[in-house]
Amino acid sequence: MALKSFIEVRPDSHFPIQNLPYGVFKPETVSSPRPGVAIGDFVLDLSEIASAGLFDGPILKSSDCFLQPNLNKFVALGKPAWKEARATLQKLLSATEPTLRDNANLRQKSLLPVDKVQFLVPVAIGDYTDFFSSMHHTKNCGIIFRGTQNPILQNWFHLPVAYHGRASSIVISGTDIIRPRGQGHPTGNSPPYFGPSLKLDFELEMATIVGPGNELGKPIDINEAADHIFGLVLMNDWSARDIQAWEYVPLGPFLGKSFGTTVSPWIVTLEALEPFAVDAPKQDPPPLPYLAEKVPRNYDVSLEVRIKPAEHTDSCVVTRSNLKHLYWTLTQQLAHHTINGCNLRPGDLLGTGTISGPEPESRGCLLELTWNGQEPLSLNGATRKFLEDGDEVIFSGSCKGNGYNIGFGTCSGKIVPSPP
Amino acid sequence: MALKSFIEVRPDSHFPIQNLPYGVFKPETVSSPRPGVAIGDFVLDLSEIASAGLFDGPILKSSDCFLQPNLNKFVALGKPAWKEARATLQKLLSATEPTLRDNANLRQKSLLPVDKVQFLVPVAIGDYTDFFSSMHHTKNCGIIFRGTQNPILQNWFHLPVAYHGRASSIVISGTDIIRPRGQGHPTGNSPPYFGPSLKLDFELEMATIVGPGNELGKPIDINEAADHIFGLVLMNDWSARDIQAWEYVPLGPFLGKSFGTTVSPWIVTLEALEPFAVDAPKQDPPPLPYLAEKVPRNYDVSLEVRIKPAEHTDSCVVTRSNLKHLYWTLTQQLAHHTINGCNLRPGDLLGTGTISGPEPESRGCLLELTWNGQEPLSLNGATRKFLEDGDEVIFSGSCKGNGYNIGFGTCSGKIVPSPP
Repeated sequence: MALKSFIEVRPDSHFPIQNLPYGVFKPETVSSPRPGVAIGDFVLDLSEIASAGLFDGPILKSSDCFLQPNLNKFVALGKPAWKEARATLQKLLSATEPTLRDNANLRQKSLLPVDKVQFLVPVAIGDYTDFFSSMHHTKNCGIIFRGTQNPILQNWFHLPVAYHGRASSIVISGTDIIRPRGQGHPTGNSPPYFGPSLKLDFELEMATIVGPGNELGKPIDINEAADHIFGLVLMNDWSARDIQAWEYVPLGPFLGKSFGTTVSPWIVTLEALEPFAVDAPKQDPPPLPYLAEKVPRNYDVSLEVRIKPAEHTDSCVVTRSNLKHLYWTLTQQLAHHTINGCNLRPGDLLGTGTISGPEPESRGCLLELTWNGQEPLSLNGATRKFLEDGDEVIFSGSCKGNGYNIGFGTCSGKIVPSPP
Repeated sequence: MALKSFIEVRPDSHFPIQNLPYGVFKPETVSSPRPGVAIGDFVLDLSEIASAGLFDGPILKSSDCFLQPNLNKFVALGKPAWKEARATLQKLLSATEPTLRDNANLRQKSLLPVDKVQFLVPVAIGDYTDFFSSMHHTKNCGIIFRGTQNPILQNWFHLPVAYHGRASSIVISGTDIIRPRGQGHPTGNSPPYFGPSLKLDFELEMATIVGPGNELGKPIDINEAADHIFGLVLMNDWSARDIQAWEYVPLGPFLGKSFGTTVSPWIVTLEALEPFAVDAPKQDPPPLPYLAEKVPRNYDVSLEVRIKPAEHTDSCVVTRSNLKHLYWTLTQQLAHHTINGCNLRPGDLLGTGTISGPEPESRGCLLELTWNGQEPLSLNGATRKFLEDGDEVIFSGSCKGNGYNIGFGTCSGKIVPSPP
């Protein structure tokens, strides 16, 4: 029989005792940020649990990692500490354990209704890297921009292509996204277009939160890469297609992306995702030895994107995809990132790139879904080529277990107009 | 008559009382990092000056910004605080002021020989951006890679092209650079090359240290951009040309750059550079209004690169260039960076891109100097297409004033072999 918590968890909840994802929150806007885990409709305040001396395992007993305003210190501790924390918390929250269940005072201090707290970006992100690891997305973009002849460039099948992203503008789910202004392609002999982006898009991604990093000059071996991954979040890599298309040669995306990137509040640990590991797609040509892993794995995480136009009461599903569609695995991304000696630091964020599946209805952004605006989407009567002001974009993701879900909750943001 | 310090400053020194650049150092490897300014062959320990209560102006009197392990808190305070600190320090160090001059105990605690201390990267760098603002560099690269027909792409004359760089691998001058391993272009039907980079290069750059940042969604006006610049450093944007050439389409440079970037220890303030401001080049086509500044200015900073092969006693000058050759100004870079709403934070680093001048002997990297290896350089008998293990690359930069120099010191690094 599946492990149960003394806290009631609805059957469709993303947050049963099997999940226990980590986040950072403030109980009230005036209080200081602290780590927590989700359980049903509650957040368990880990600073209270630590202060009560309930992290009594050998590693965490003497650590102040849960008294920090972010999770960096905890994720830096590595797998033994993560396992110890999970064991402690699963025991503490289980139906049969009285320590917290029967302590009304501690329950009141440490268990807060999730709709009463404010979430923050859970880690201080030193560097943010974005990969381009879905073959379907890469192919669709190639066809849209360069035609059906060789839509995927030669290097793509040999290495997980990536670029450095902007860390400062990463925001937590629920933060409004201000439509960026910028330059677009000139028409004829006119100067370039300048104004609010006319092709604002979402990108359905997930992202790795790096645990222990590596020293500069010391690459991470592909078969040890999983030990450097603390967990995953949902991520919306908002993109201004018109700004991007004009600026990106020859040095890549810059202002077309750096106006905002949204992450979900909850980091689902790799350990919680373990039961949902699946074989990664076969790679042809075979990867070079430094990218060849003993057991190439993806995770079966169902993803969904909904859009809610301002004037609508309900949102409308625009795509359904799955993390398992990635061609390059999370561990290949990490090993490639460090092969030149580049150092990762705890809390670094590695985006997967847009996760598109093989079917048209599993495409991960409007660029693909509307074929660059040529085939507008219908949303309960409204139509969309790209995002309009007032549109709210809501990602969700979850794994279906035997009698429970391991979910990521949602990752959302609403478009607000450019400043005048 | 020029202002003089009671500390002896050699006529060719980069660090007279007119300069006073800021850095962060440790008196011994075991001590904690602290801010300092350079004066002649000494570092003035600002934590000692602050603890002695000598920052007695209205802003700094009650600030602990000089008791921090980096300069972020100080640079975030903005221009009024910078002016106050400079006035205080110029007075304190002047020949006619007895406070420090005649206090043997304080002098001993606060004035340390520069060769006895260890320097650190002076700011915690949240994000590092690298521009591509020299027209001569852009043109040379265009000809080398795409031929003489339209070597400069259309967007380049309308916006300062840039990409996000990697912040984690920024190191202080004097740090060894480990030759990166990575993939290079396949030959024929073989798999891609994999191994130590065969085309390791330097890039002669300078970089802006951002002072006060801006809120997400609030662009910085071009005519206020200078107030957000604390000062400049020398920067070597080491580049593995073979890795870069294979990986960079379509998302830009990644592992070809992220193995290491070297900055000089001293940040020369914009105020110290003020006497060396010169007119920026005329821009044709004229920039869009958000990039059109009332007084477009560059700075006249002479730059020099020397290489010292391991087996040589002396280094050899390989190029002489000047910051004034930039087409896009530092303030245009900053205004463009934020026009989409992207937020800058205090301590962010904005590289200029390789600074090449119009003459062949002012080219800012080996790619250009050897024309991609076709015309090897002669270095006192040795020849170089690209950098070899053991080569030390030394940048220096200075402005010639009336009877004094405002200098940046050096920015150096030595190439060490890839791990096996």
